[in-house]
This record gives sequence, C-alpha cells and structure tokens, in this order.
Amino acid sequence: MSHNSFGHLFRFTTFGESHGVAIGCVVDGCPPRLPLTETDIQADLERRKPGQSKYTTQRREADEVRILSGVMTGEDGVQRTTGTPIGLLIENTDQRSKDYSDIKSRYRPGHADFTYDAKYGIRDYRGGGRSSARETAMRVAAGAIARKVVPGVVVRGALVQMGPHTINRDNWDWDETRNNPFFCPDPEAAAQWADYLDGVRKAGSSVGAVIEVVAEGVPVGLGAPIYGKLDQDLASAMMSINAVKGVEIGNGFEAATLSGEANADEMRMGGDGKPVFLSNKAGGVLGGISSGEPVVVRFAVKPTSSILTPRQSVTSEGEEVDVMTKGRHDPCVGIRAVPVGEAMMALVLADHYLRNRAQNGE
Amino acid sequence: MSHNSFGHLFRFTTFGESHGVAIGCVVDGCPPRLPLTETDIQADLERRKPGQSKYTTQRREADEVRILSGVMTGEDGVQRTTGTPIGLLIENTDQRSKDYSDIKSRYRPGHADFTYDAKYGIRDYRGGGRSSARETAMRVAAGAIARKVVPGVVVRGALVQMGPHTINRDNWDWDETRNNPFFCPDPEAAAQWADYLDGVRKAGSSVGAVIEVVAEGVPVGLGAPIYGKLDQDLASAMMSINAVKGVEIGNGFEAATLSGEANADEMRMGGDGKPVFLSNKAGGVLGGISSGEPVVVRFAVKPTSSILTPRQSVTSEGEEVDVMTKGRHDPCVGIRAVPVGEAMMALVLADHYLRNRAQNGE
Amino acid sequence: MSHNSFGHLFRFTTFGESHGVAIGCVVDGCPPRLPLTETDIQADLERRKPGQSKYTTQRREADEVRILSGVMTGEDGVQRTTGTPIGLLIENTDQRSKDYSDIKSRYRPGHADFTYDAKYGIRDYRGGGRSSARETAMRVAAGAIARKVVPGVVVRGALVQMGPHTINRDNWDWDETRNNPFFCPDPEAAAQWADYLDGVRKAGSSVGAVIEVVAEGVPVGLGAPIYGKLDQDLASAMMSINAVKGVEIGNGFEAATLSGEANADEMRMGGDGKPVFLSNKAGGVLGGISSGEPVVVRFAVKPTSSILTPRQSVTSEGEEVDVMTKGRHDPCVGIRAVPVGEAMMALVLADHYLRNRAQNGE
Amino acid sequence: MSHNSFGHLFRFTTFGESHGVAIGCVVDGCPPRLPLTETDIQADLERRKPGQSKYTTQRREADEVRILSGVMTGEDGVQRTTGTPIGLLIENTDQRSKDYSDIKSRYRPGHADFTYDAKYGIRDYRGGGRSSARETAMRVAAGAIARKVVPGVVVRGALVQMGPHTINRDNWDWDETRNNPFFCPDPEAAAQWADYLDGVRKAGSSVGAVIEVVAEGVPVGLGAPIYGKLDQDLASAMMSINAVKGVEIGNGFEAATLSGEANADEMRMGGDGKPVFLSNKAGGVLGGISSGEPVVVRFAVKPTSSILTPRQSVTSEGEEVDVMTKGRHDPCVGIRAVPVGEAMMALVLADHYLRNRAQNGE
Repeated sequence: MSHNSFGHLFRFTTFGESHGVAIGCVVDGCPPRLPLTETDIQADLERRKPGQSKYTTQRREADEVRILSGVMTGEDGVQRTTGTPIGLLIENTDQRSKDYSDIKSRYRPGHADFTYDAKYGIRDYRGGGRSSARETAMRVAAGAIARKVVPGVVVRGALVQMGPHTINRDNWDWDETRNNPFFCPDPEAAAQWADYLDGVRKAGSSVGAVIEVVAEGVPVGLGAPIYGKLDQDLASAMMSINAVKGVEIGNGFEAATLSGEANADEMRMGGDGKPVFLSNKAGGVLGGISSGEPVVVRFAVKPTSSILTPRQSVTSEGEEVDVMTKGRHDPCVGIRAVPVGEAMMALVLADHYLRNRAQNGE
Repeated sequence: MSHNSFGHLFRFTTFGESHGVAIGCVVDGCPPRLPLTETDIQADLERRKPGQSKYTTQRREADEVRILSGVMTGEDGVQRTTGTPIGLLIENTDQRSKDYSDIKSRYRPGHADFTYDAKYGIRDYRGGGRSSARETAMRVAAGAIARKVVPGVVVRGALVQMGPHTINRDNWDWDETRNNPFFCPDPEAAAQWADYLDGVRKAGSSVGAVIEVVAEGVPVGLGAPIYGKLDQDLASAMMSINAVKGVEIGNGFEAATLSGEANADEMRMGGDGKPVFLSNKAGGVLGGISSGEPVVVRFAVKPTSSILTPRQSVTSEGEEVDVMTKGRHDPCVGIRAVPVGEAMMALVLADHYLRNRAQNGE
Repeated sequence: MSHNSFGHLFRFTTFGESHGVAIGCVVDGCPPRLPLTETDIQADLERRKPGQSKYTTQRREADEVRILSGVMTGEDGVQRTTGTPIGLLIENTDQRSKDYSDIKSRYRPGHADFTYDAKYGIRDYRGGGRSSARETAMRVAAGAIARKVVPGVVVRGALVQMGPHTINRDNWDWDETRNNPFFCPDPEAAAQWADYLDGVRKAGSSVGAVIEVVAEGVPVGLGAPIYGKLDQDLASAMMSINAVKGVEIGNGFEAATLSGEANADEMRMGGDGKPVFLSNKAGGVLGGISSGEPVVVRFAVKPTSSILTPRQSVTSEGEEVDVMTKGRHDPCVGIRAVPVGEAMMALVLADHYLRNRAQNGE
Repeated sequence: MSHNSFGHLFRFTTFGESHGVAIGCVVDGCPPRLPLTETDIQADLERRKPGQSKYTTQRREADEVRILSGVMTGEDGVQRTTGTPIGLLIENTDQRSKDYSDIKSRYRPGHADFTYDAKYGIRDYRGGGRSSARETAMRVAAGAIARKVVPGVVVRGALVQMGPHTINRDNWDWDETRNNPFFCPDPEAAAQWADYLDGVRKAGSSVGAVIEVVAEGVPVGLGAPIYGKLDQDLASAMMSINAVKGVEIGNGFEAATLSGEANADEMRMGGDGKPVFLSNKAGGVLGGISSGEPVVVRFAVKPTSSILTPRQSVTSEGEEVDVMTKGRHDPCVGIRAVPVGEAMMALVLADHYLRNRAQNGE
C-alpha cells in the first residue's frame, strides 16, 4: 500500500511539491522492449503545460522530463524499456523566490490547506505544496508510457462542458480538439467559450468543466470481478485528479432516469461473425469487464478555488481573515485536466491489460 | 493485489456465487476487543434482504450469517473481536433446482454474461453466478463490522431519486427512511413512488435510481495524498457496486457549472475555538482529506437489466435471439443498494481511519 | 495489505482458529478452466493430517475440505475453475469440550501466548487459537490448487534432518519418502529415526528438523528484481510457517564458507542448443530469477514447544508458574511441515508464474 | 504490487542502474514532523560506500544524496518530514566510459546476466545494470529515515563469519565494529581476517560471509499473524539483498538440532513487574510477533562472483567461452552488506510499527 502509488502491475509512484527542487515518478512493471524516448513523453507533457494560452496559468515551467533509468539503447540505435523501473524527473524551474508569509497560515477556501495542516501538523505551503496540480505532470509522463502497453488502443479526451455551457454533440470532431485552446470537439462551442472565459478571466473569477475521455480499441475482457472492476478503477483514477467531484461511465447519471427497456444495449451478430452491440449506453463496460465497445468516462472539475474576490476564512492561529488570490491561476482548471484524464485512462488500461494477461494468458 | 478484496488495512475478501453452496467473506485487520455478535451483522443484512416488500425480488433467502472465526467470548460473557481474521458465511438456501438450458448460452443485455464468457471462457450462469448482486450481502455484513471501527461515526443512506422522480430536499427526514420500502427521506415522494413503481413492476419493466450516503462525525484528517484520497476510495467503493454508473462527492457534477465564488465553502471560527465551514459543497473532503464536515456521496444505479420485454441479443454459439427475463427481479434494484452504499462508506472510513492512525498516531 | 493473505496474483487468505467452528481460505486469481475437485485437494490434506502414525499428534480431524465457490461443472462432466475466488472450508470436528482454565492465563514457553496477549489484549487460547499449526491445513489445500498452475512443475519435499541426525544424501530416493512416516528420502536414516523418535516421544520431549523442498521443471524467468525476487518470496513463504527459524536457498549458509571459484555454477551449451549449468549451488535462482535448474529450499523447524517437562513461566496476572503440556502433540512437528513446505513452494511458483506472464507475455 | 518496492505502510521504491544517470528512491508513508536532513542519510551512506579500504571495490562514487521532496524547514530552522513522499537521488559519478563489448553477451557465472536476458530479452549490461549491488545504496538511504520511526530502537550489525572463519562470541564488543574495516565485533578475529582477506584479494579470489543484525528496544507486539509475521518479513528483507543465500532468526538452524527442553526460553517476573525472558533463543520473535527481547537475524552472503580465475560459461549467442572478471570488485561483498542489513532491519521495524499502530492504536 502506498498513498502515492497508482496501479497494481503497471504501477507508478510520484513525489514532489509544487515549489520544491523537482517532481518525479517511478514507473514499475512496464513490459520490456517497448521503444521509449524522452521525446515520446515530452509530446504529452506539452499538451498539459501551463502558459500556452491566455486561458491557463502564466507560470512558466519548461517541464523537461529526463528518463533516469529503465531504458537501454540497442545495437539498432533504438532506446527501449528493459522491464526494470523507469525513473522520471522534472526539475522545477519557476520557483519564484517570494514572500510566503501571507499564505503560510491562511486557509484558502476550496484548497487542502486546512486539511493537510490538521492531518500532518506541518505543511509545505509554497504554491500548494504536494496538493498542487503540478503533480499531474507526472501522471501525464507516466501515461505517455502507458499508452504504449495495450496494442491498438487510442485514448482521446475532450472538454464537453465549460461552466453551464455544453457542446453540441452533433458537431463532435476529434480533430477540432487540436484547433482551440480548450480541447473542445465542437468548433462553435469553442468560439463561444473563448469570449465567455475571457470574461471570467478578466473578472478574476473561475469556472468548472466536464471532461470526456474515450478509449477505442480496448480488447474484450479487461477488468475483473468484484473489486477489480475496470469502471471502478477508472472512477478511482479520475476522482484522484485534483478538483474532480464526479465521475460517470457511459450514460452515467442519466441511466438512473431510464427504464430497463431504454437502457439496454442490444446485440446482433456482426459481419465478421462476432457479436456487436447496437448501442453503447454502458460505456464499454459490463459487469466490470470491457465489452470491446469504446470505454467512455466523464468527470466534473470544480472551478479553480483561487479567485480575486475575497472569501471569508481563518488562519492556523484561529484568526478570521478574508482570502483572495492574486497571481497566476487557470480561470478554468478543467482545460488542463483533459490530458491528465487521458493519462489516467491509459494507465488504468495498461494495468488491467497486464492483470488480464496474468490470469488468462494471451 | 486481489480481484475480490477491498480496502488495505481494514480489508475484506468475498467469495461465492448466486446459486452456489454459500457466499462468504474474510474481514482482516479489524481492531481487537470490539464487541461483535452475529445479531449485530444480521440487523444490517435484514435491511438489504430480498422479499421484504412487493418492490424487491421475491427470492427467499434466509441470509443467516455465521461468524466462523476472529471472535472470543470473555469472562464477562461479551463476544469480542480478537484482531485475527473474521470469517463470515451465509448458506444459500433458495437454490431452486431448475432448468438453465435457456440462459446458459444467451447473453442477457446489460448483464455480464458476454464479458465473463469472453474473459474466462467459462461461466457459472446460474442466477448470474459471481456477477449477481447476491455478493453485496457480504459487503453489508463486512460493513456492519466496519461501522464499529471509527468512534462516533454515523453512516446513513437514502434513495433520493427513482427514475426521473427526485425528492424534495426540504422534506428530508432521516426517520422517514425507515417508514417506507424505498429508504426515501421524503414522505411525499415515497407515496408517489409507491404508485409509480407499482406500475413499473406490473409492466415487467424496471427503473434506475440515485442513492445518497452521508457519514457524520468523521474525524478531520482521513484520506491521504495523492492516490489514497478519501473521495477517490469512495468513488472506487461505490462504482464497484453492481449496476452503478456514476458517483459524485458533495455537489458533484453541479460544481462544473459554478463559479469559484459560488463554489467556495467559507470558514469562520466556531464557538468552541475551532474553525467551522459555512457550507459543505465539497462534501466533507478537501484535497482528498476529510474536513470534519459530513462526507456526502451520491451514486447512480441503472435500471434492472432483467425485464419482461424482449430485447435483441445473441448466444455464445452466435445465434441471434430475443431475450426476456421472467422470474424474481427487483423493478428498482437501486432500493436495495441503499444499505450496500452505507456499508461501502463504512468500509472506506474504517480503512482510512486505520491508515491515518498508522502514519499520524492518535 | 492483509495480515492473513499470501501472494499477489495467485493469492490466498486464510481464517479460523484451532478450536473454532471451522477453518477456511479464499484462493483468488486462479486461472480459469483448470480441472479441480475436492478429491484433488483432499489427497494433499491426507499427507499433512494428524494421527496417521504414532509420531504425530493423536488429535483426530477428518480434515474434509469443501469447495464453496469458484468452480463449475461443464457439459463434459468435468468440474473446472472459473477464474472467480475459490472458497474452501474445513469444519473442525475434534473440538473437545474441555476445561481451559489452566492454560488460558499461562504463557507456554515457545508459544505465541504472551505476544498475542501483549499485542491484542485478548486471545483465543483454545488449542493455540489462530497461532495453531492447524492453519497450515489451509496452506496445503491452497497449495493443491497452486500445483495446477505452472505447467510441468513437480514440487516434492523431504525431511533431511531430525534433531542432530542428518540423512546420507547418497541414499536419496524420492520414492522412499512415501515408505516411512517421516517423508525421509533415505531408508537407512528413516529406520534409525524411528527408534530415535520413539524415545523422544516416550520421554514427552520433542525435537527439531530440517526440511528440503525441490521444484523441478520451473521455467526460466520467474522472479523479479529487486523486491520481487523468487528466493525472497520463498524465504518469506517458508519463514511464515509455524516454528520455522531459518531458510536457505541452494547451498545456503555453506556458500558463506566458500571461495568464488568453488561457488561458481559454470555453464556450457547443452545438446539441445540451450545453455546448461554444470552444477546448481545457486539452487535454481540467479539475481532473484529462476534459471531453469531445480529450485531448492531448506528450512529449519524448531522442536515442538509443548513438552512434558515443566518449564518456568508466568501468567497473564504476573504469577510465576511451571508449565508442562499434557496431551496430543507431535514429538517432531517438522514431519508434518513437509507437505506444508511443498504447498508454500507451489504457491510462490504459481504467483510468480502469473506475475511473469503479466509483464512478459507467454 | 511492485517489483521494486518494499514495505507496506513505510514503503520505499527504488530505481536506477549501476552505470545509468542516477539511482533514486521514493519513501512513502513516513510519519510527519521527524527531523531529517541529507546529513542524517549521508552518515549511513558513508558506512556502505565503496573504496574506503583496500578490502572493498575501488570504484569511486561520491554517493551524495539529495532530498528532492517531502521535507519542510520550520520557523525554528529545523527541516522535518511532512508526511508526503520523500524523493531521494544519487547521481552516478563514476560511470567510466568503456568498451562493454566483451561483457555484453557473456553470461558471468553467479551473476544475473543469463536470467535477466532470458526473462526480458534485453538487459543493461553496464556494470550489472539493475542487478548491481549499487541499488543497495538506496536501501541504506531509506533505512536512515526508517531508523527515526520507532522511538528508542537501536539497530546494529556485525560481520560474524568470513569464509570459514567465525568470531569468538566471548569477545563481542559493538564498539569494535567501528575500529576495523570489516564491521567485526571481535578484535582478534578482525586482525586475523585482515591477513586472510589480503591473501584472497591478491589471488583475485573472493569469499563469503555471515552478517548478524540486532535490534534492541523493539516494542512488544510488532508483527502480525499469519502472513504478516515479523520474522517472515525480516527473512524477505534479508533474502532480497544481493548475494544472500540464507537467513535465520535467533538460534536459527541450530534449533533443528535441539530438544524442546533445551530450546525453551523460560520466563520469570522482572523487578519492574513485567515478564522477562531468561534466554533469547527465539531471537525476539514468538508466533511472528516481537517479544520485547532483542530481534536477532543472521544472513549468509555468497562469495563475490566476479573473480580473476576463468570460469566456463556461454554467450547469448550460444558460444562457449571462459569468463574472468578484471577490475574493481569486493573480495568479500559481505562486508558492505552489514549496513545494508541494518537498513533492511530498520525498514521492516518501521513498517511493522506503523502496521501495529494502525490496528491496535498506541
């Protein structure tokens, strides 16, 4: 058991604080002989990196990852995993030397300041310390390796709701997620969100979001009864991301409103002699086990807690204060959660792929 | 790692199929010297037991639990836990000898028939086998023990939505959950649901539901960063329950629609010199750690997949068939999920209570 | 984490006390479609069962195991594992109703009475409770299933030393282990031990032993760096058996006395074009990973602590007393440890076989 | 589950190869508010560091450890643990750029070359890669933190046998272990070993050793039944160290030769009203649980496999070759295993201290 590890057979362990020397992780259990370079990982990190548009925090982090172990270059010049643990490190370069006296004792509403202090009696308050979303960079790095484990799987994510504004699903185009700073698959919504979020940002306010992550090409049979369900581990994975307050699989909460007739995913025989599903309300999981349909997860991210409007709070000394947060914050932290959600999906699938192979062979 | 275990320090492992000889579980890591009898456990099992109203399956199971180990009666005549593993067993008494030839090869839509077969190449098809909700009886049994671990905690659950019909939260009265067969805290809604569900039942249809579970008296400090978050483990726990498709903490998906200002739980100093929260949108968890506020979880249960209306499906031999399910099924399986959800909450809290005590002492 | 579970992917969890209602275990992670009946398991249990000769305790336990779950009989009439957890149960039939007042507060030297009391503040003192060697019956039962997991592996054990008397290895004949009540591979030693142990038994004394377990046909590549070494897990497995005080792999402690030249297992190419080792001082493990050579483990069992000669001790109330143990005890508990050691070897190999298949495929 | 992690609640995960960029580890679960600086860790690292006498490898590693996370300096200027994961890193500075062509395909007898290749199909052959004893530096670093967890515990180790030469236990003086390059507690033996090992070294040969590690001040009650025994985890810990072939607790293998009378540790009431043991043949563990007596473990280390005398072997291409190892090797690798054994003892005790506190409180 480890508070800072995720996964069982494909397992990663992260460490590091927002304003410490470095953040890092160890990826253990990776199959050997997978081609892997720092460039592979860097590509995913770039998608999460702050400061890429006016809609994300202006903190400037190079986020350059180094592979410290677990790879070997063969005679063909290709660097591959060796099956031993892969150590990854990112130095923190934008640790502004600043005065923390105003925040070290103030409990910012919505943050983990109060609970960390209450639990441990000590806390790294610089930039949120361990509870900062900076930790998610290592998830993305580990996820980039995980993407290589399950043959043929493609994991993609999109922002499907910003504040109260949802996309029009008829407009869904995965390519569009690369054309706007919101990972939005609906170009019309993206245009509207640009104006909307500009207003939020200028007001020093913030707004929540909903992210959808879809994995296609998932083999049938991943997941396990009863406490090793694929959807259970996906729920765990997504809820572990900072600021996430809800997770759903397939049609999710909508399923509660439906009749059994309306909710059934009927089956027929496909042209290739294999069963096909006529719909995918289940989101690709039946009884905790993947059905071969796309695995679909959505999660809700709360609005960034750091805002300009003063909120009532207290200090660790019991003084009543007003807290407002100046500085470099995402008006919609949900945007950068898109690549993080993708990484967590890839990590869960890699783990379950190995778990299934252990018990059932290939 | 075990596919059929849940929890780390307070850990239970279940076994058994719906129509096998027996179902059972092992509860490991329970603190010693807690008073425990079969009667304590039976009380919770009665709340989950089928056949108690016309709204639940008419399968008749005695559900009598036996404690096989892990307790000892002292000289004061009180039976207590000894710190060694607690074995629990429930014999299956209502295993109707029947002809399974019509279901052994048919993949019932919404069930795990297809995925179990695809994964394992073999399946106990009698009554759903391992994927039957019968397994949840052992969760409730283990949960009854878990309730004794964290001093002062009270865990209660309620059905807050049946199909499209939600309760009026202004009518919330916990006592009412014992006055109707739906665990509904709103007597007006309960009355309406009675008629509504009667119609669903007579039509051989089914309907989904939303359950809310609340834990009061949870100490500050339970949960751990980053992959040991209390809300993460609650999401995992609830999503592991059969037919659950979504989980949310506090205001959940609503948080996505709010601004940072509206979503903040402000703090002031309480009369006893301790900080108090002025609201609980966070659902009692900040940064994955309990804040001392009530821990609030909701989860969505899909409609029972077994219905009278024929649905298209296939057989394991590739034949296209229509499937309809006669027999003893819950028109709203979400009802009996209420005590199951309570049990899972109690189990997560017990585990995290021990985990926190390990690292931080008392 | 569980105090009463062993293994990771092939994992079993035991429960039950010596004089409780029953003992049992759950075997999780077993591959599906392995033929398995109670008879398969019973055969191994018979080898461990007490009361089979005058050299083991005269306690009469039927030790009849029931499979409660995890198997299914196919149309061919063969019962097979389904991949779901296998519940096993043995009712305790020889729970003599007796007066425990003389032992409930006395700390028997060499037993766990004092430490259990000090740790938990409560203890099932009847027949040793949880710390009784009766628990090892479930290891043997689980081990019987484990034997089916790795294709082609044969696990055998032998008593190679009784008290100060060692076997002559030149006489080693595996068949002889079935011809004497000591699992002794040397018929001459067995004959001498019979007289020797008769004297020990009549004197109400006891004696220690050394057991050797050998696994042949182990595939190359089981085990993992650095904390998942095959020999590490074997050491853990054997040391977890009651009364075991030492474990060694291959030439073990003798290796400490040798030079590098003398200790090297040299290699040549075999007739089939594969490397062969010219000796096996390493005991089949190099760098924690199986080499394809027989895996050889030895472990030392201390003499039975329950003896007729009074030993000084104290009670839980702080009274100084003399303790002697009348009744049904093994003069050499190491004898019945032979099938237990075999079971633990089979369990470790099964687990590592699945672990290796997870990471490296087939 | 992780192949490269050890411990459950106090858990560390290592990564890195002998001749890679760096080695490192993550220590998770450490209690908060323990004073901790790099200097604390460095002191233990110095005791293990190579090149400190002519009896250890002349490889020159600075072995300077950096703490990357998990600590915070308070207003009193004291740096303390925060309860979050502690990342540790040591850069490899003595990675000689050399030609590896002669060793990349040759399987050195006694090394893991063959088994790593067979398992993974790829291997970092530079300096032994992941299987190098260099990894043990991170154990010592993690162990230095573990030493701070259990109040009052003192862990010390000594070399008690070099090749066939044992110490005279009547001469045991812990202080002497700091006065000779062998960690030998018997000054007379140390003097003889100096000459002996000089001869071994000059001959390009090597020799094995036995190490004894003793923990004093261990509280009663650490360890857990049945698969969480303290001695079981110590056996696992010691056997996980490179080149270890045997482990014993207390009198270990000698117990096999004794009668029950001779092996009993009798008890009386001590002057302080607490039970005392009149001997400690059990090595401080009864039924897997610490008794309050010193915990005593011994382990056997095989002779260094790298020697000057050619040994027969094969290459990965199937060619028969002679292998001899020039270069910088320890003639008795057991010497530097002393601080490693101490570290593993401290790590096991820290883990079990937290595990016991979880279940039983303080």
